[in-house]
Amino acid sequence: MKDINGGISAVAGVNARGIKQGKNGLAVIRAEGSAAGVFTRNKVIAPSLIITQQHLKGGKLAAVIANSGCANSFTGTPGLEDAKEMARLTAEKFGVEVNSVGVASTGVIGKRLDMDLIRSQFNEMRESNEDHEGSTAAAKAIMTTDTFPKEAAVELSNGTRIGGIAKGSGMIAPDMCTMLVFLYTDAKLDAGILKDCLQKAVNKSFNMVVVDGDNSTNDTVLITATGRSGPVDLDEFKQGLEHVCITLARLIAKDGEGATHLIEARVNGALNDHDAALAARTIVRSPLVKSAVFGKDPNWGRVVAAVGYSGAQVDQQRIGLAFADKSSKVKLVENGQIMETSDADLREIMGSEEIFIIVDLNLGSGSATAWGCDLTYDYVRINAEYTT
Amino acid sequence: MKDINGGISAVAGVNARGIKQGKNGLAVIRAEGSAAGVFTRNKVIAPSLIITQQHLKGGKLAAVIANSGCANSFTGTPGLEDAKEMARLTAEKFGVEVNSVGVASTGVIGKRLDMDLIRSQFNEMRESNEDHEGSTAAAKAIMTTDTFPKEAAVELSNGTRIGGIAKGSGMIAPDMCTMLVFLYTDAKLDAGILKDCLQKAVNKSFNMVVVDGDNSTNDTVLITATGRSGPVDLDEFKQGLEHVCITLARLIAKDGEGATHLIEARVNGALNDHDAALAARTIVRSPLVKSAVFGKDPNWGRVVAAVGYSGAQVDQQRIGLAFADKSSKVKLVENGQIMETSDADLREIMGSEEIFIIVDLNLGSGSATAWGCDLTYDYVRINAEYTT
Repeated sequence: MKDINGGISAVAGVNARGIKQGKNGLAVIRAEGSAAGVFTRNKVIAPSLIITQQHLKGGKLAAVIANSGCANSFTGTPGLEDAKEMARLTAEKFGVEVNSVGVASTGVIGKRLDMDLIRSQFNEMRESNEDHEGSTAAAKAIMTTDTFPKEAAVELSNGTRIGGIAKGSGMIAPDMCTMLVFLYTDAKLDAGILKDCLQKAVNKSFNMVVVDGDNSTNDTVLITATGRSGPVDLDEFKQGLEHVCITLARLIAKDGEGATHLIEARVNGALNDHDAALAARTIVRSPLVKSAVFGKDPNWGRVVAAVGYSGAQVDQQRIGLAFADKSSKVKLVENGQIMETSDADLREIMGSEEIFIIVDLNLGSGSATAWGCDLTYDYVRINAEYTT
Repeated sequence: MKDINGGISAVAGVNARGIKQGKNGLAVIRAEGSAAGVFTRNKVIAPSLIITQQHLKGGKLAAVIANSGCANSFTGTPGLEDAKEMARLTAEKFGVEVNSVGVASTGVIGKRLDMDLIRSQFNEMRESNEDHEGSTAAAKAIMTTDTFPKEAAVELSNGTRIGGIAKGSGMIAPDMCTMLVFLYTDAKLDAGILKDCLQKAVNKSFNMVVVDGDNSTNDTVLITATGRSGPVDLDEFKQGLEHVCITLARLIAKDGEGATHLIEARVNGALNDHDAALAARTIVRSPLVKSAVFGKDPNWGRVVAAVGYSGAQVDQQRIGLAFADKSSKVKLVENGQIMETSDADLREIMGSEEIFIIVDLNLGSGSATAWGCDLTYDYVRINAEYTT
């Protein structure tokens, strides 16, 4: 498996395009094949998701249309009609069935879509082809407060490719929020297997990202397998898919609203994986940990407190804790005992762009990794201003 | 029942004193009687709490000693010895049993107490008496990032009094964090009944306050009944205690780190009270709702999203939502339909110091109220700087 360029355009049979005008963007991706999706667990869900879930029942998609700027959420029956209209436009253009089109939206909740704008953007959109430009244009089109487009792709040993684009910056919590992710592979896999692989990869990646702990009404991760490259070793495919998802998840955490640091929390030695995930996510969700990281303050007591209230089994006599960056590591606590540390080393780590918080609970073999970002003045500014 | 001045000094048999020097404070309260406590559910708990829980086993306290500036948390056996030493100092001064002294601490986690400072503050402390000054001095002594001392007291119809002091500003989440609350009454009640009344009042008050969702290792709520005023009508006592606790809980939310607005979320019509509490707490915990309130932005879609992911049963066709302040109210959603609203009225409400977010789930008769504050630049500044 090796990382490659090209995002979703690297995958055979994928044709992506996108347009962005101010806050409003539209992406259209044509790719036919078996398909599966994972969606928000929020009980308030947007009409686009209802439509997409219906269309996925056949296990196939021929195209995806996604807009940014308006979530088309909490918009009732008229919102449902608007989402259908988006599917219809796409189906007509490509001469495919309406119920083979996936629809996704992201932006402000509680406002109707501007369908005139969507129709005009749809018509204005430049025809794309299978080169990298199409992937990037689509990745840009779905951005809201994101500061950069998010793309990833890998090539497996037999030449099979997996690519993805993602958006997500605020309202990011475990259970994927507001996150739109469109994944493609040229592997030949049926919808059931695809769904299983997707859910497993999402659990290890997008479900382990926290920007603010808020959970959106529109989260959507879709995968389509075009089958152009034929059969694939399933284990290698799973690894490749997880790798693409984790790459995109880290990009989302790094681009968290206002973020200046990526925080990676690695929890080992938990009673089980579930406990490890609870602890890891609680660390990257804690506003106190996040503020301390922003202030480059190695206030590790807040990490211990977060682990303590995470719900995971904890024995404070056994906890181990270290802070690290890509080049060095400082042990702060071992078996519940506070260690002597070098302030200079700690200061250097806290100044790094990517900070690793490494916890060992010393109770079992459960492990998990979660990603988040620091809490900054800019997060507050961005979210105090959003709808004005 | 009427509100009265005097805080805990209004209660017969309570003698409070306190000293504050920079970040370090010490409060000592002498009051003998049956006693009960409620503590953090964090699995990492500070030695002071272990000592206090042991001492409460007899159902009696004769005094409480509490320090601010250092949480004496994650300090192992030496920390336990320090907490015992605090109890011993107090016991010797008043000629009472060591195991009748409650101990509490708040401040930075992972540092040993400066016992020399505590001994010197203990000796320097000015003798207090039963006037209001003692209550305020103790309330000030336990402050950390709090900007004002928090006191409340009521007098019941038969003359029984209930008073309390509290500290709490950051690391505030459901399940009381970091919160120290010392309550006193001159009612004559045994420890078992006191414990039951306290737990009920805490559930409706301190367990419904969120500043940041972080949960501390040191939360302590203690109540001592001196018995000086004799028996009391139990229902009236419960109401009075709940009133004092809610008054203090609101003061904690209002004084949340960096706060410029108090947010009161009232959820009605939930399937049951548990669901209502989930929804109310999720609203005041949401960083997106909190940032919007800071920006005076009536971004109600974020409230709907928070209710949707709270875990409470929700039917989006039935939701009702209004924003209000003390003088006016604007309905935003009724039975899932978005209402026409006056921007001027909404703007006025969002400019108020206390903002009420009123949700009706229209599914049952469950209700709950939670308190929180906005997320501001100052929250980030305070918590990026804490230990430096």
